[in-house]
Amino acid sequence: MNFNEDGLIPAIVQDYKTGDVLMLAYMNDEALQKTKETKTSWFYSRSRQELWNKGATSGNTQTVKQISYDCDEDTILLQVEPKGPACHTGEKSCFYRDFDIGEEPSFKREVVHQIFESILDRRE
Amino acid sequence: MNFNEDGLIPAIVQDYKTGDVLMLAYMNDEALQKTKETKTSWFYSRSRQELWNKGATSGNTQTVKQISYDCDEDTILLQVEPKGPACHTGEKSCFYRDFDIGEEPSFKREVVHQIFESILDRRE
Repeated sequence: MNFNEDGLIPAIVQDYKTGDVLMLAYMNDEALQKTKETKTSWFYSRSRQELWNKGATSGNTQTVKQISYDCDEDTILLQVEPKGPACHTGEKSCFYRDFDIGEEPSFKREVVHQIFESILDRRE
Repeated sequence: MNFNEDGLIPAIVQDYKTGDVLMLAYMNDEALQKTKETKTSWFYSRSRQELWNKGATSGNTQTVKQISYDCDEDTILLQVEPKGPACHTGEKSCFYRDFDIGEEPSFKREVVHQIFESILDRRE
């Protein structure tokens, strides 16, 4: 992987079922190795200058299902199953605010997921 | 927004229908403004040190449907409708390679999308 001059690489965290992008955090090489080994998400805190295991204090851990990397090998993408909200605010995703660009998407991806879930429920 | 010491902010690009994460690139303030105004994706190339409009040369532009930002206001998330592959390799997404962590996700999100698309097709 191509870590930056600080030895870090951005890691996008995505809910593997809903497709929601939950957060972005940074990994160093050790965080990446620990994530592979433990199949829970580890990052490097730039402010605290230490490794952290997401959810270790809050309980909102993330079980890692897949780890991908991009063409330039300078970004990581984690597919996870979250135990709770990803955001420290209590929101499911850290990306809970939008700029007003004068239109609402006519297609709502979350609706597709909800329909699928209710189909699965009916089969049981 | 909290741009970093180089005046940049990472921007995650996601297919608004399938939920696939397509790429990550960096924006400066001008790129963000141009993205809002033109509703196509603009980034700042760190290697070429210039603004670029994704797809301007390849034709694989991205129509921007939604622009979100995270709790720390230091990451952008674009929901886009891509005209073609996001990756310069010709792959749909730049994240086409995975680490082997000893398991395959049992849930395939793309299958949900395909089922939904085929339901829509049958209604026509």
